[in-house]
Amino acid sequence: MKYWLLLSFLLITSLTTVHAQDSASFRKIASEIMLNGTCYESLRTLCKTVGHRLSGSPQAQQAVEWAQKELRAAGADRVYLQPVDVPKWVRGKESLKITMANKPGMKEVPMLSLGNSHGTDGKVVAASVVMVNDFAAFHALTKDDVQGRIVFFNYRFPQELINTFEGYGAAGPYRWHGPNMASAKGAAAVIIRSISTGLDDAPHTGSLRYADTVKPIPAVAIGNTTADLLEAACLTGNAKAELQSECRMVDTVRSYNVIGELKGTDHPDEIIVVGAHLDSWDVGEGAHDDGAGCVQSIEVIRTLKALGMKPKRTIRAVLFMNEENGLRGGYAYADSAKAKSERHILAMESDAGGFTPRGIGLDMEWSKRQFIKNYRHLFLPYGIYDFDQEEGGADITPLKRAGVPVSGLIPDPQRYFDFHHTPQDVFEAVNHRELKLGAVAMTQFAYLISEVGLK
Amino acid sequence: MKYWLLLSFLLITSLTTVHAQDSASFRKIASEIMLNGTCYESLRTLCKTVGHRLSGSPQAQQAVEWAQKELRAAGADRVYLQPVDVPKWVRGKESLKITMANKPGMKEVPMLSLGNSHGTDGKVVAASVVMVNDFAAFHALTKDDVQGRIVFFNYRFPQELINTFEGYGAAGPYRWHGPNMASAKGAAAVIIRSISTGLDDAPHTGSLRYADTVKPIPAVAIGNTTADLLEAACLTGNAKAELQSECRMVDTVRSYNVIGELKGTDHPDEIIVVGAHLDSWDVGEGAHDDGAGCVQSIEVIRTLKALGMKPKRTIRAVLFMNEENGLRGGYAYADSAKAKSERHILAMESDAGGFTPRGIGLDMEWSKRQFIKNYRHLFLPYGIYDFDQEEGGADITPLKRAGVPVSGLIPDPQRYFDFHHTPQDVFEAVNHRELKLGAVAMTQFAYLISEVGLK
Repeated sequence: MKYWLLLSFLLITSLTTVHAQDSASFRKIASEIMLNGTCYESLRTLCKTVGHRLSGSPQAQQAVEWAQKELRAAGADRVYLQPVDVPKWVRGKESLKITMANKPGMKEVPMLSLGNSHGTDGKVVAASVVMVNDFAAFHALTKDDVQGRIVFFNYRFPQELINTFEGYGAAGPYRWHGPNMASAKGAAAVIIRSISTGLDDAPHTGSLRYADTVKPIPAVAIGNTTADLLEAACLTGNAKAELQSECRMVDTVRSYNVIGELKGTDHPDEIIVVGAHLDSWDVGEGAHDDGAGCVQSIEVIRTLKALGMKPKRTIRAVLFMNEENGLRGGYAYADSAKAKSERHILAMESDAGGFTPRGIGLDMEWSKRQFIKNYRHLFLPYGIYDFDQEEGGADITPLKRAGVPVSGLIPDPQRYFDFHHTPQDVFEAVNHRELKLGAVAMTQFAYLISEVGLK
Repeated sequence: MKYWLLLSFLLITSLTTVHAQDSASFRKIASEIMLNGTCYESLRTLCKTVGHRLSGSPQAQQAVEWAQKELRAAGADRVYLQPVDVPKWVRGKESLKITMANKPGMKEVPMLSLGNSHGTDGKVVAASVVMVNDFAAFHALTKDDVQGRIVFFNYRFPQELINTFEGYGAAGPYRWHGPNMASAKGAAAVIIRSISTGLDDAPHTGSLRYADTVKPIPAVAIGNTTADLLEAACLTGNAKAELQSECRMVDTVRSYNVIGELKGTDHPDEIIVVGAHLDSWDVGEGAHDDGAGCVQSIEVIRTLKALGMKPKRTIRAVLFMNEENGLRGGYAYADSAKAKSERHILAMESDAGGFTPRGIGLDMEWSKRQFIKNYRHLFLPYGIYDFDQEEGGADITPLKRAGVPVSGLIPDPQRYFDFHHTPQDVFEAVNHRELKLGAVAMTQFAYLISEVGLK
C-alpha cells in the first residue's frame, strides 16, 4: 500500500512538474508574441506593398519573394521553394446592369465575376432574370422556364447560425454548383447573392468549378443591397439584366510553395506543419484570407528561434500557393512528402481569418484527439476552449487523405464573411492583438506537439 | 431497489425534459435576435442622431428621450424615469505643445484632458517635464524633483496580458491617482500615456478623482505615438510642455435613469435587472462604451415580447445615467430599490463593449455561482464558456453592496481598449453579429433566471 502511495505521489509530482513546465513555456511564447511579435507589421508589408495576389499574377510572384525573405529573417534553419504549376485566371473589365422595381431603364451595379468563370468574351449578354431562393425552387423550374435566361440564385446567408462557417457550408453550393445546374437547363448566365454576412453592398467573389458535362456559362456575384434590389425587381415584374465581362482562364504558370523550417533536435524526421495560403483573390489585400495565416505561420518560427526554444521535432512553416482556385500547392506538397517518404505527425492550418482564436480543430483518429485534449487546460488561459470541432484546412486536405492528422486554428467566426473575397479584406480590417493571439495559439500548439509527439 | 430505479428514471427524464425545453428556448431567442434583432439599427440611431452624451449635456437629455421611446417600442409593460442629479463637467478649448527630441521649437499634439479635471483656466502652464515609467520611479523622486514641473506618467499598457481588463486594472491607477500623487509633491500638471492598447495616437480620456487633501492640478492624456515622442524628448534632454485648457466642473444637473420592464407572471416581486449606462464621454459616439450595452438591454425586452415568452419573474432593463464620471445613476437606483424594499434576485450589466461574448461573470455567493454553472452547457453552443470570472459592472456595484447577486456580460476583450474613451468609439467600430450575440446571451441568461430563480 505504501509503495503504491509513493508511486502515485511520484507520478502526480512528475506530471505536475511537466505541466508546470508546459505552462511556463506557454506563458513565454505568449509574452514574446504579444510584446515583440512581428506578424502584424509583416502583414502590413504584405498587404500594402504586394497587395492582392491571385495565382499566376506578378503579385503572387512578389509574395513568394516576400515570404522567403520573411522566413529567413525569422531565423528558419532552411528556406526553400517547392515548384507548383498553377492556373492563371484573369478578370478583365466587367459590368452588370439590372432593371429596378417600378423604375424605367437599367442601373449599373457593383459585381464581381466568380473566380475561374468564363465571361461573355466582352459581348453584352442581355436576358430576363428568373429568381429562385433555393435549390428546391430551382428544381421546380422546367427547361422552358430557364432557357436563354439569367438565373438569379437569391439564397440568403443563414444569419441565425452562430458558427458562420456552417452558414458558408449551406450557401457555398450556390456558388460552386449553381452555374452548372443552371447551364444544364439552358441558362445564359448566373447571378448569385453573395455568400455574405455583411449588411452592405460588397460583392464576394470565390471559385466555381465547371462540370465537364455542361456548357460553361458566365457567373457573377452581387452584394446584399443590390441583391435586395434585384429581388424587388423580380417580384414586381419582368426583371432584366445585362452582363458584359472579359474574365477567362489563360494558362498554366510556374509558381511555388514557400517553406521554412526549424529542424528538430531529437526527432528531426518527425515533421509538424504550420501553414496557410499565400495566394488571395484579385480584390482587396487578402488580409484575413489568408495573409493573417501566413504571418502567423512565420511568427511560429520567429518566436521559437527568438526564445531559443529548440523543438524536439521538426516544425515547418508552409505557405501554400493556389488555395483559392485550384489547391495545386496543397497537392504538390502532399505529392512531394509522399515521394520523399517524409513522416508528418501533424499538419495545422490557419485559414479562417486573423480574429481572436477560440479553439483548435482536430481532424484525426479518436485516440489522438483525446491525447491532445489532455492538454486543453494549458490553452484555457489564452481563451482557447474548443477542441471539439473536426476542422483542418483546405491546403492540408491532401495530407489528410494520405493519413496525416490535421488540425485548424479556429478564430471567432463572426466577422469573417463580412470581408471574405471582397475589396474590403484589407489590412485595416485586422486587429493587432487578435492576429497575435492566433500566432500565440499556433506556436503553443506546434511547440507542445514537438515536445510530446502525437500518440 | 426497483423503486429507486424508477425514481432515478423519472428524475433523469424530467431533468432532461427541462433542459430540452431550455435548449429550445435558447434557440428561439438566438434565432429571433440574429434574424430580426433591432439592436444594431438602434445603436446606429443613438450614435448618429444623439452622438456622444456626457452627463448633464443636451445630448444626455436627448439620449434619455431616445431610450424611453425605444423601450416603449420594444414593448415594455411599463417605462419610467428615475431622477438622478449628476455632475456637469465641460471640456472647452484645450491644447498641448511639447518639445521634440533634437528639434527646436514646440509641436502641438493630440490630447484630451482627463474627465472631471480642472484645466488651466485658459492660461498657459509652461514647465519642464519629469518622466516616470511607473509609481516606483515616482516614489523615488523628491519634492524638489517635482516642484513646479509637469509629471509625465509614462506607464505602458501591459500588452502581454491576455485579458485586457487586467491591463486596464494595472494602468488605471495612473489616471485615477497619478494627479493626486503628483500634486502632493508640488507638480504643476500631469500628462499620462493613455490607457490604450492601440498602435496609434488616439488620446483616451476617462475619470480622475481629486483627493480632498491636495490641490487639484490639470491632468491630460496623450496617445501612444505622442507618448513615444515625449519619452524620446525626456530621454535626450530637458523636455518641456505647454498646456492650455478650459475644462471645469460646472454644476449639478437633474437627469434620469431610464427603466423599462416586463412584469413577471408568477413572481412579479422578484426582479432581474439587465443594464448598461446611457451616458458616455464627450468624444466619439459612445458606441462600445456603452451604447452597445444599452441597445442589448433593450433587445432583451423586445425579444421576449416579440416571442411571447412571458417571464415568471420581472425583467427590468435599466439604462443608468452618469457611470463615466460619478456613478450617480447606480447609487440612485440602489437607493430607490432600498426605499421601496424591492427584491432584486440578480442584476446583470453589459459594459465591456459590443464584441462577441465569451462568458458571464458571476459575483455572488458560491452556492449561487454553482447553481448557475449547472446550466453552462446550454450556453456553450453560443460560444459562452467562461463562468469563472467574478465580474459585474460599475453601475450595479451599489446593488451588490446591498447584497444583490451581480453578473456581467464578458465579451472578447481584445479590441476594447483600442476604442475606450476615444474619438474612435463610433458606430462603425461595432460589428452587427457580435453586438447581437451579446444581446442573445443576455436574453438567454435573464430568461433562464426568470424561469428557475436563483437559489
